[in-house]
Amino acid sequence: MEADSLRNEIVKLQELMKQENIDYYYVVTSDYHGSEYTAPYFSVREYLSGFTGSAGSLIITRDECYLWTDGRYYVQAKDELEGSGIALMKMGEKGVPNIPDFLAENMNDGETLAFDGRTVAADICIRINDKLKGKDVKIIKDIDLGGRVYDESGVRPELKFSEVNDYPITYAGVSRGDKIAAVRAKMDEDGIVCYVITSLDEIAWLFNLRGHDVPMNPVFMSYAVICGDKVSLYVNLDSVDDELKAALKNDGIDLYDYSSFYEDLKNIDAPFYLDKSKANSVAFDYAKASGGGHIRSLIALMKAVKNDTELEGIRDAHIKDAVAYVRFLTWFNERETDRFDRLVDDEGNVLTEIGLSDRLEAERKKMEGYVEPSFDPISAIGEHGAIIHYSADEESDAEINTDTFLLMDTGSQFMSGTTDITRTTALGDVTPKMKELYTAVLKGNLRLMNTRFTKGSRGENLDIVARTPLWELGYDFKHGTGHGVGCYLNVHESPVAIRNKIFDDRDNSCELSPGMIVSNEPGVYIEGEFGIRLENLLEVVHLESTDYAEFYGFRPLTLVPFDKNSILFEQMSTEEKEMLNDYHILVYNTLKDYLEDETDEDVLDFLFDATRPVR
Amino acid sequence: MEADSLRNEIVKLQELMKQENIDYYYVVTSDYHGSEYTAPYFSVREYLSGFTGSAGSLIITRDECYLWTDGRYYVQAKDELEGSGIALMKMGEKGVPNIPDFLAENMNDGETLAFDGRTVAADICIRINDKLKGKDVKIIKDIDLGGRVYDESGVRPELKFSEVNDYPITYAGVSRGDKIAAVRAKMDEDGIVCYVITSLDEIAWLFNLRGHDVPMNPVFMSYAVICGDKVSLYVNLDSVDDELKAALKNDGIDLYDYSSFYEDLKNIDAPFYLDKSKANSVAFDYAKASGGGHIRSLIALMKAVKNDTELEGIRDAHIKDAVAYVRFLTWFNERETDRFDRLVDDEGNVLTEIGLSDRLEAERKKMEGYVEPSFDPISAIGEHGAIIHYSADEESDAEINTDTFLLMDTGSQFMSGTTDITRTTALGDVTPKMKELYTAVLKGNLRLMNTRFTKGSRGENLDIVARTPLWELGYDFKHGTGHGVGCYLNVHESPVAIRNKIFDDRDNSCELSPGMIVSNEPGVYIEGEFGIRLENLLEVVHLESTDYAEFYGFRPLTLVPFDKNSILFEQMSTEEKEMLNDYHILVYNTLKDYLEDETDEDVLDFLFDATRPVR
Repeated sequence: MEADSLRNEIVKLQELMKQENIDYYYVVTSDYHGSEYTAPYFSVREYLSGFTGSAGSLIITRDECYLWTDGRYYVQAKDELEGSGIALMKMGEKGVPNIPDFLAENMNDGETLAFDGRTVAADICIRINDKLKGKDVKIIKDIDLGGRVYDESGVRPELKFSEVNDYPITYAGVSRGDKIAAVRAKMDEDGIVCYVITSLDEIAWLFNLRGHDVPMNPVFMSYAVICGDKVSLYVNLDSVDDELKAALKNDGIDLYDYSSFYEDLKNIDAPFYLDKSKANSVAFDYAKASGGGHIRSLIALMKAVKNDTELEGIRDAHIKDAVAYVRFLTWFNERETDRFDRLVDDEGNVLTEIGLSDRLEAERKKMEGYVEPSFDPISAIGEHGAIIHYSADEESDAEINTDTFLLMDTGSQFMSGTTDITRTTALGDVTPKMKELYTAVLKGNLRLMNTRFTKGSRGENLDIVARTPLWELGYDFKHGTGHGVGCYLNVHESPVAIRNKIFDDRDNSCELSPGMIVSNEPGVYIEGEFGIRLENLLEVVHLESTDYAEFYGFRPLTLVPFDKNSILFEQMSTEEKEMLNDYHILVYNTLKDYLEDETDEDVLDFLFDATRPVR
Repeated sequence: MEADSLRNEIVKLQELMKQENIDYYYVVTSDYHGSEYTAPYFSVREYLSGFTGSAGSLIITRDECYLWTDGRYYVQAKDELEGSGIALMKMGEKGVPNIPDFLAENMNDGETLAFDGRTVAADICIRINDKLKGKDVKIIKDIDLGGRVYDESGVRPELKFSEVNDYPITYAGVSRGDKIAAVRAKMDEDGIVCYVITSLDEIAWLFNLRGHDVPMNPVFMSYAVICGDKVSLYVNLDSVDDELKAALKNDGIDLYDYSSFYEDLKNIDAPFYLDKSKANSVAFDYAKASGGGHIRSLIALMKAVKNDTELEGIRDAHIKDAVAYVRFLTWFNERETDRFDRLVDDEGNVLTEIGLSDRLEAERKKMEGYVEPSFDPISAIGEHGAIIHYSADEESDAEINTDTFLLMDTGSQFMSGTTDITRTTALGDVTPKMKELYTAVLKGNLRLMNTRFTKGSRGENLDIVARTPLWELGYDFKHGTGHGVGCYLNVHESPVAIRNKIFDDRDNSCELSPGMIVSNEPGVYIEGEFGIRLENLLEVVHLESTDYAEFYGFRPLTLVPFDKNSILFEQMSTEEKEMLNDYHILVYNTLKDYLEDETDEDVLDFLFDATRPVR
């Protein structure tokens, strides 16, 4: 890599680094709240690097630049970084150091590392500090060079504050007052008087509020402090209407402007605590200065276990999503090919990836309670499917040709719940090898969905169930098997997860408990050829108590048929075929009552056929 | 529980506590080296409580006494504690606090906790300290009241030092010089000049020495220090003969007397490091005082990955053990019942549990290289099988009646390797329910043995494979699925493990790598009725490298047929029957060459029949 080949945005940053006497500059993908998906204002890393994936960090030196990202994005990052002069660091691959180790290996005495501490998680900052301990290195946390370059570009979006809305108790199930009381009870247990919350989805959940400040994540820019009897919510005051202001006041919640948070935080005259894996390093430094420090989030687990009202709403959202989905599939099933073997719709228009996801969204929009997608849809034909988090844009948007797989990973925000579904469909003829791999992914999905496990089991104990059929063929997928999901909140919600420690070292120790929602999404990706992923959301349910253990299992929330044309049935055991049939029967029996309109006659026919038992 | 019902040994201890102004006294099951199995001299907890299991801790207050033990020992502890006045604390059960939490909940300001710090692991001590931090509690670490009571009883065995022997390179594979050099290389990597080793099996492995100070664990009382160029081994000097002394000296190893260790440790004039999960709290306090502290064992992982010479020896030991075992089974198979339905041998003698394990040992003793059992044999008929670590003694020794299961968990120390095997056999007619459970345990064993997994997988990821067939029936077993095993060393060797975190919170994060040895021992225990456990030792092997991952799997070391009479074949899939047949074919083909003597004709016939494929 030669220095002069670095893209212009990085060169500009390096000029500022020189002016400020900074040797290493660190840019993460986050906002001030540790969000995975952020308001466009915070897309500094994307702007600087040109890499559009949702996860990645940059280290810029005086003459080099490195981007770290995980297995989901290896292929995409390789493509997008081409010609940028930025070196790709594949997180989790052998010989690739993580960022703290990289800094420890490369920084010399007397050098300076800088970053915007408001965007860096406190625990990452602690790890970097630990690794650099032996060195005479200066760390500056309050300089935002990346933001300056982005500001000066003239293309940076404004930080917008949209309306904040009440999330009615008919969806939330528990009042904000009761939730705050539950948090206070935990604070008492831990002997804590002051607790600070910086995660946007924790605040939205706790206060039964929703917003639109981050696309597809119904949260709003905010901080919250519970200190003794006082509850303070920091939010853009103009975003809250008078009625809601009055309601919050009535619930004992004091509103302050979002911009006054750090000043107030500095002045809290009691030791306060926050979660260092969620809070940024500036807030955490204040906590330590106050005599407080880290406490594991008091909210994350409460939020993860959905209450009965939430569960009813989530199930309902999945039924509506499935109705829209099978209507889409019915339409799609009537596809024809033109003389170039491209799929065309009934009006003769050539179908494209974006066209398909738009059409699916159009069906969803017809459903009551639909708000918006829960993430950028992935609609990927052929080799695009091997890019795990592919997002078609105008440039890449491909026409739908046949004899390959179409992979669609999409989701909805309904007022009553969040959905996330991936289906892979064979178009035309696919090879036996492709069917073999589809079948292995399906077996993994079915086996995990039907697994029973004892109370106390963690995602790391279950992960293997979804992988075994692929492992037997010599394949694997370099992402987790499952993530938690919010209730009309973020589509990725920690700490629920089904993962192992091979690809990343995140904490997978959350015990799976009834009421938790988790995705089940094994896949396989053949670079340059195709990708397969099959994803259902699952609800953890109690099955039975015996003298030996409490047994839990999963109930499928997602209710859309799998593509029988992609299956090699001889590869499935009798038991696995029963699992498939049981699932398809559940899909048919649940959806049929929602498809009784005359206009849905074709849809019902399609569904009947798609869910007909196999032998 | 009333105070006056406490057993005499505890009351005596309480009298000493009163004299010394101690409110809480803590007794663990260990020696000064963190050993799981100890020389009889250290059986203070067993003497005080009457509980003979291998794991357990006591907390004695002024008027009460509590014993903590794990799921393996619930039934046994309940039996043995009957009438003792000691309360059983079932570790891992809901609502049962661990010892640090118990102390934090119960101790009051101004009270004193005491224990013999040489027997308590440093990290447990740290946890207790942390939990009691907020309280005004005094902790005394250098008082051995339990030992005093035991000494005064007149029944305490002496601390004996037996001969220390060279473990030849033909078995060890790597010289002690090369092993020490490898440890030094790791010390250099970590920037450590002084490293202290207190684990007996680590010292035995590192120096290629073996002893007999702990029954069935071929270790010897010792400490070791590597400090710069100097290597010091603390050992009873009379236990080492002149030839070995000269050889060690020649290898640059200085011998010091075992009794001078702590005095020398105090005087090391450099910061030194040791593993706080293995070292006792007194040694660790010295380390901290030296400016050093904790470092994860530099030896444990090296020792866990067996070298080629060790692997050959271990495989050979398992073949010899299997030959002895099938000779025993052949003899046992010719059993008859008397008119009371008791099993008798060919001379008309009634068979008992101890009689059977003695007979098995007699066969093993005939094999070249056999030294001793690797642990106390478990030979358990009927309901005794439900006591997970049952050990028959003269009092309990039961006659072998029929129409139930016989469970035998036994193992050998051969010069070239350590074995550990459990077989369960149906005697007479067993019920369909019993066969159903046997089959579920067998399926778990076979599935785990045949699992392939990617590099980086940990035991916690694999544990579910062995449990699923039982979970499907509503059963579970309250112990780990597998433990590491030494090479002519301890039968339980950390850090290799296949476990989940439900029953204990030990670290299960060791990545399974080729050359590691692990047990595979699912089971099921019906209190008051019977127990089933099926245990093979497995070697981790490399299977293949693909574009997607490195794949590992297991090779069975244990080569003894499973009891086909206990199986419900209709409960097994075709694939599972193939796994069973493949295993039995391997057993037959491996052992047949060792059974070519005329005297073994019956044995070969038995083996042929026992391993004949099923459909």
